[in-house]
Amino acid sequence: MPQGPSIERLLNDLDIISRFGKAPGGGYSRPAFGEADMAIRGHFEQEARAAGLECFADHGGNLHAVFPGEEDGPAVISGSHSDSVPHGGNLDGPLGVFSALEVLRFWKESGRKPRRPVTALLITGEEGSRFRKGTLGSSYITGAMTPEFIDALTDGDGQRFDALVARHYPERRRFMVSPGTTAAFVELHIEQGKVLESEAVQIGAVEAITGLTQWQVKVLGEADHAGTTPMNMRHDALSAAAAMIIEVEAAPAHVGPDSVATVGRISAHPGGVNVVPAACEFTVDFRSPDPVRLQRLGEVLRAALNGVAMRREVHLEILELQSKQPGPCDPLIVRAITSACNELHVTCRAMWSGAVHDALHFSRIVPAGMLFVPSIGGKSHSPAEATSPEDIEAGLRVLERVLWSLANP
Amino acid sequence: MPQGPSIERLLNDLDIISRFGKAPGGGYSRPAFGEADMAIRGHFEQEARAAGLECFADHGGNLHAVFPGEEDGPAVISGSHSDSVPHGGNLDGPLGVFSALEVLRFWKESGRKPRRPVTALLITGEEGSRFRKGTLGSSYITGAMTPEFIDALTDGDGQRFDALVARHYPERRRFMVSPGTTAAFVELHIEQGKVLESEAVQIGAVEAITGLTQWQVKVLGEADHAGTTPMNMRHDALSAAAAMIIEVEAAPAHVGPDSVATVGRISAHPGGVNVVPAACEFTVDFRSPDPVRLQRLGEVLRAALNGVAMRREVHLEILELQSKQPGPCDPLIVRAITSACNELHVTCRAMWSGAVHDALHFSRIVPAGMLFVPSIGGKSHSPAEATSPEDIEAGLRVLERVLWSLANP
Repeated sequence: MPQGPSIERLLNDLDIISRFGKAPGGGYSRPAFGEADMAIRGHFEQEARAAGLECFADHGGNLHAVFPGEEDGPAVISGSHSDSVPHGGNLDGPLGVFSALEVLRFWKESGRKPRRPVTALLITGEEGSRFRKGTLGSSYITGAMTPEFIDALTDGDGQRFDALVARHYPERRRFMVSPGTTAAFVELHIEQGKVLESEAVQIGAVEAITGLTQWQVKVLGEADHAGTTPMNMRHDALSAAAAMIIEVEAAPAHVGPDSVATVGRISAHPGGVNVVPAACEFTVDFRSPDPVRLQRLGEVLRAALNGVAMRREVHLEILELQSKQPGPCDPLIVRAITSACNELHVTCRAMWSGAVHDALHFSRIVPAGMLFVPSIGGKSHSPAEATSPEDIEAGLRVLERVLWSLANP
Repeated sequence: MPQGPSIERLLNDLDIISRFGKAPGGGYSRPAFGEADMAIRGHFEQEARAAGLECFADHGGNLHAVFPGEEDGPAVISGSHSDSVPHGGNLDGPLGVFSALEVLRFWKESGRKPRRPVTALLITGEEGSRFRKGTLGSSYITGAMTPEFIDALTDGDGQRFDALVARHYPERRRFMVSPGTTAAFVELHIEQGKVLESEAVQIGAVEAITGLTQWQVKVLGEADHAGTTPMNMRHDALSAAAAMIIEVEAAPAHVGPDSVATVGRISAHPGGVNVVPAACEFTVDFRSPDPVRLQRLGEVLRAALNGVAMRREVHLEILELQSKQPGPCDPLIVRAITSACNELHVTCRAMWSGAVHDALHFSRIVPAGMLFVPSIGGKSHSPAEATSPEDIEAGLRVLERVLWSLANP
């Protein structure tokens, strides 16, 4: 009788799906409902049915593998997404999908039966690589976007989202996340950062999923000849933008170590080597896991940018591209993760998720939580993405304990 | 009997050529040997011949209108270019061409005869808008580029430089600038900056034409997820570049008020809103009219950029795109300009040329000088380029005195 979930079986699943979607040039490219994604879904369904689990798809194309509980009622759900970014890794998403499935397989074979139903969930299109919008499956069943909006999304070939779901899952069932259907949601995921590795900790207990705001910033100065205009007669839009970028980098320290701000894209106009730039556009992405600090960070940034604009006599425009409030994880789930780590003698630290995940949408409606395993070198969205088998095993074992405790309240 | 050159006649020339090369969208587009440039050349030849001047083209396509002196020997040459940048102004170039011509017309009609021959020169392709390389006509006759190199240049349609010269000027004559052929060169040009306007001065006596160096700078950091990477774990190539741009802006003050440095072009890679940039490329254009200060500015910039790279642990590559030594103007010509201004009660200041001009190439071989008239708002290479008729008249009158004094040593 096995005493815990099988790391060998999980690694075998991950090995099997590593044949799907290999991209010329490195890594994996698995857009939602593409050939590779359908092969992963096929393996999930086959394994779930082989383990005696009921399996169905919902209107968002998410696959549910259900372990019935001793009692009816809302289910504990655990899973992650099956798609990838172009040239991504094998673990970003599938690790959480097949870990949840392995937990249910282990319970089945060892004759364990939880009080509450428990579902392993394979989630559709988190990465946005096919329909340009991300977290589609979780948005669908949590109502974060309307069904009409998601159904009408089209890919690069003009194929509609709802047509693809209907073609692949003609027998799909209506399902919405609510306190009536869902007791809790837990997602195991790779960290996609360097925090765990740098502290040699195996498990991150996520206390909150970061909120984020993205701006398009436009700085308007004056074009001048780079040779004939003395330095003190210039209103150089790019120099002003450079001073602003230094302020963006410094701002998070004013609100706390869990906040970040990044300028990822920039352009200067007209862009001649010998022309003082008249205009400069750049993006700002800033995040905090706490709603008050996220707002404060926005105000600090706005004041700093305006200060630079005033000192340098350039015009400043800030356009908000998007804003998402942070999603606090349920304290009882955070405690369940840390308790499981203590029991299993696995190192653990509380942290936040700097990336957006499907769990964010669940956290708005039902108790939700996440646990992270280390990313080697912090690499993700890259062919270099990797996690050691020991860390994957720690994640699997902690997930099993957490789901068992949530399913037997 | 007229007492000075005719501003009316010069403004009439400028009015006539303002019909040539009007660009849809504003300003003038007059690539070398294009229809508009040929019309300007036609007007120059016609006026020169009507005034009884001998007229010929050289192998660089430059047009010489020669006023013979009482003595044979090297000529005093004055002129500028006839071509324009796309959507440029009417004065950038032609002002110097037709001012020199008007000086000779005035001498003819008033019976004045200088000791030395004096040539009004229309110069080919200073702007580089047709063959991508600039100052072609002056480079040809001063040997700044080899005849073979210039002859083989092709435009966007594959037409060779030498074929165009041969087609338009089948009777072209060999001419090279040397102490034997050329006593001095003087160019009247619009300032293309704001220095004269801001000080309400009518004439700039150019002491040196700036040298310049242009770099392509590459900063290599590390790509990271903008959400999951704490600020203190980043090697952000764009933030490093921003710190470098601030250093570029500050550097000229360390070497003197006549030096400038500009970042005109920038890009960050991979360029995702939510990705910490792995790499950033930008250009640096720096100039000084003094060769020692130009070199010192380069060293100051190199040290500052390396300092930022070391502090931020990013990799730095600097590639030199081009470098031109400054061209000192002849002190006797500078003195002739200031003396003429004093005689005529025209305000004058010594200055340098931040832009490269044809005069730079002449200055390497023979005594050369330039005088500037104000650009309204500092605008040039723009449909907004303009100079008041009063300032044009001042330029014309000063040019006449300067040429007379140089031609009668």
